[in-house]
Amino acid sequence: MPDGDIAARDGKRQRGGRTQRRETRSGGGQAAQRPYIVRNIPTYDILSEESLSRIEATADRILAEIGIELRDDAEAMQLYRKAGASVTDIGPDVWRLKFEPGMLREILKTAPAEFTQHARNPDRSVRIGGRNVVFAPSYGSPFVMDLDRGRRYGTIEDFRNFVKLSQSSPWLHHSGGTVCEPTDVPVNKRHLDMVYAHIRYSDRAFLGSITAPERAADSVEMCRILFGADFVDSHCVIMGNFNTTSPLVLDGVTTAGIRTYAAAGQGSIHLPFLLGGAVAPLTTAGMVAQGLAESLASCALTQLVRPGAPAILASFFSSMSLRSGSPTFGTPEPAIGSLVMGQLARRLNLPLRCAGNFSTSKLPDGQAMQQSMMSMMSAVQGGANYVLHSAGFLDGLLSMSYEKLVMDTDMCGALHAYLDGVEVNEDTLAFDALAELGPGQHLFSTQHTLRHYETAYWDSALDDNQPFETWSEQGGLDSAVRANARWKKLLREYEAPPLDEAVDEALLDFMARRKEAVPDMWY
Amino acid sequence: MPDGDIAARDGKRQRGGRTQRRETRSGGGQAAQRPYIVRNIPTYDILSEESLSRIEATADRILAEIGIELRDDAEAMQLYRKAGASVTDIGPDVWRLKFEPGMLREILKTAPAEFTQHARNPDRSVRIGGRNVVFAPSYGSPFVMDLDRGRRYGTIEDFRNFVKLSQSSPWLHHSGGTVCEPTDVPVNKRHLDMVYAHIRYSDRAFLGSITAPERAADSVEMCRILFGADFVDSHCVIMGNFNTTSPLVLDGVTTAGIRTYAAAGQGSIHLPFLLGGAVAPLTTAGMVAQGLAESLASCALTQLVRPGAPAILASFFSSMSLRSGSPTFGTPEPAIGSLVMGQLARRLNLPLRCAGNFSTSKLPDGQAMQQSMMSMMSAVQGGANYVLHSAGFLDGLLSMSYEKLVMDTDMCGALHAYLDGVEVNEDTLAFDALAELGPGQHLFSTQHTLRHYETAYWDSALDDNQPFETWSEQGGLDSAVRANARWKKLLREYEAPPLDEAVDEALLDFMARRKEAVPDMWY
Repeated sequence: MPDGDIAARDGKRQRGGRTQRRETRSGGGQAAQRPYIVRNIPTYDILSEESLSRIEATADRILAEIGIELRDDAEAMQLYRKAGASVTDIGPDVWRLKFEPGMLREILKTAPAEFTQHARNPDRSVRIGGRNVVFAPSYGSPFVMDLDRGRRYGTIEDFRNFVKLSQSSPWLHHSGGTVCEPTDVPVNKRHLDMVYAHIRYSDRAFLGSITAPERAADSVEMCRILFGADFVDSHCVIMGNFNTTSPLVLDGVTTAGIRTYAAAGQGSIHLPFLLGGAVAPLTTAGMVAQGLAESLASCALTQLVRPGAPAILASFFSSMSLRSGSPTFGTPEPAIGSLVMGQLARRLNLPLRCAGNFSTSKLPDGQAMQQSMMSMMSAVQGGANYVLHSAGFLDGLLSMSYEKLVMDTDMCGALHAYLDGVEVNEDTLAFDALAELGPGQHLFSTQHTLRHYETAYWDSALDDNQPFETWSEQGGLDSAVRANARWKKLLREYEAPPLDEAVDEALLDFMARRKEAVPDMWY
Repeated sequence: MPDGDIAARDGKRQRGGRTQRRETRSGGGQAAQRPYIVRNIPTYDILSEESLSRIEATADRILAEIGIELRDDAEAMQLYRKAGASVTDIGPDVWRLKFEPGMLREILKTAPAEFTQHARNPDRSVRIGGRNVVFAPSYGSPFVMDLDRGRRYGTIEDFRNFVKLSQSSPWLHHSGGTVCEPTDVPVNKRHLDMVYAHIRYSDRAFLGSITAPERAADSVEMCRILFGADFVDSHCVIMGNFNTTSPLVLDGVTTAGIRTYAAAGQGSIHLPFLLGGAVAPLTTAGMVAQGLAESLASCALTQLVRPGAPAILASFFSSMSLRSGSPTFGTPEPAIGSLVMGQLARRLNLPLRCAGNFSTSKLPDGQAMQQSMMSMMSAVQGGANYVLHSAGFLDGLLSMSYEKLVMDTDMCGALHAYLDGVEVNEDTLAFDALAELGPGQHLFSTQHTLRHYETAYWDSALDDNQPFETWSEQGGLDSAVRANARWKKLLREYEAPPLDEAVDEALLDFMARRKEAVPDMWY
């Protein structure tokens, strides 16, 4: 007698028997690989128009009454002033900018709602904005970790490995930027090696340096070598990921970097990195309002430099542990905040970067994947268009993990299937499948099953879906240990995409000259 | 210079310093404990009205043209026939029932959209339907597992432990039913021990037996001893969780059980357990249509027995591994299907049971929690009202895990905060918090932060949110190992809720008489 769910299921399996499925592949996954995702399900809109308007009004009030502090960039100050901002001197090279309600929105009307970032492989160019979703690996960790060697400072070898692993995954769309800090390369030269690694080991689009205006310029220059200067002037081929200095400050190095990318017609991401209770209010509504205000002020600068330059609104929300005061990632409040940020971005008609595979865990364990999934779901459900930190994020972003990278990319594959939603048509409604044999008869051998079984379901390359006994006989490994074997296999099997030799030489020559021109700096 | 996200964050922390937070508690969580959740965010509706209508029309067509096979319950057959179903004899005690489009919906108009299941502790009664969400532990696994002893058959001691652990969690609302199979108790008597364990070790509402009509009757009878016969006749105090025999069969033991609960005015859940490609089409639209048809046919029987009896529409979707033919859980297609099921239930104005913390993993590892979170998010976002399998589910439901139980209940806590959504008001918009110190100043000491920091964020009892160094010094444990320590601690500290001694004796006396009346059966 069936005793609830499980017996019913097993009853069915006994009665229906089992059809042997072909071992068709070692797990590439069933969702179709594509250069980026075009979502087929709506976004998850959780807040009313009225509440959204109140958040926007608060952002406007912050910008008009408190304002943004701008430091060390007189040129940016002049641009804002010319556009109508009220500017007050508050110290040597420090200004307070105030913006009338609606002014920044007006300025941003020239920013594209959707744009293409071109990859050196044209089949891998990504479309950012609208219903498109682009996954890129995690960004900015000083440490790396794996199960064999634990946590250690990142090196350029790690950096290259992460670029290769990302390139190996069919479920990422973009090579990202500072996939880890290559701490064994001088601070003032590592941007050259990073940009080169993206170009050499990936054929996808990528992010350039933002740590100094001349490094931003070098990044764009290397793209001119790769794509040709004319192409670069009229197409977005690189982007910079810029943080505001929360709360409510724009640092001159940041604004100079933003100006560099915008002047070159290249893309930029404008990210307030908000830790609730530290640099932002710890109530979600206020955190979102502040994030919106800061990102708007930063985005607008691009249009003052070059109207039409691609700009991405962005948010990064994190919470705080009551007990330790530490920042926490992958928690529910930031996930909810990200959904709201999605609604606000759509009202502005701007592309959005938001959330990612966030976690505070120090291992690729259950905590890591639970937190990641909560955070990542908010990105894809909330309509984020560019999801940096889609893979590898551990340790509150202090570490990039080899194992988590492959676990997360596998999850990204599942999210392809998720975002495909439900197709409803005569065939998928499958009346004939049930009618063919009728009640009580399993469907293994129906025409409908035979027609669909190879493509119906996402097929993870990493999850173990075998019966307990088989799994146990094969060593009873947990998913982190399987991921450890997988990244090593992927690195062993990695093949670099072809790169024109003349271009390669020109890039290496450019880098050599740049490196020779200045002494090493280590801070 | 900040190099992207991480440096910006650390820059802020260095500049802002750190405020010491009081060690207020050992991790009860910040979201307020409550008897059940009243959702404060809308459901995630992914399908258009047109597509939903097509799915409903297909369900209607299945019911009208293929029909449902009913076995071994002439009384149920008469009830369906009397209500207008076309009945065809197709063998000894086997009938094919066909229903005109809309007929079952009409019958179900007497079923309550929302009802209360009473707990013996009135503060813990749950409201099922509408905007309410009730979490209950997993159900029906023959095996149990923990990190110390691995996988083994469940016993009545395990059963009691799981009831105690569920009772210990503030984030479950319901004690569930067959939290594991107590395989050391005779099959025909274990229902008595299970119902008694729920009554004795929990003060929450629970599910009764469904494996035979007399066991269902015993379950209700024990409630009459606990609540009084009059109260039971006019209030829902127990429910049965009934599986259809997919595809498209209603088994006589099931329908007799449904009739027993309904006649007593008690609740019932009507669950097609659909494994795509095995007992249902492997296209999501077809799987949902079949699930709807089966659940409608099963639900309707309650109203034919006793109009107004509580009935819960239900679905359980799983996919299949292409490579092994094994069922897979926590995958994207079933998650998407569950969201659609939510939309359909709301159109019917019926309470819904759907999804849960599903996983195919054999350990409480990254795979387990990633799959669980994807599945569980579909339950809470899709508007499921009663979420069985909210905690403990591993191994494709073949095993109930001690560690996963406490990991999942912690996640259920996070989902309380998630479903609370965003409050938007003058205080939460926090303009004053930013205005107080202005740009560039951290918010640790603002009035707003001091007012909110103790309640702003969900505080996990299980996640490790400490810095890497602290975590490492404390042993560098992964979340499964921490969960292992936690369930042992919870069991050690468990205290049974008070139970009237006379009631306890009457229950024990009833059980003893029932057990003496028949010989043990082991199958």
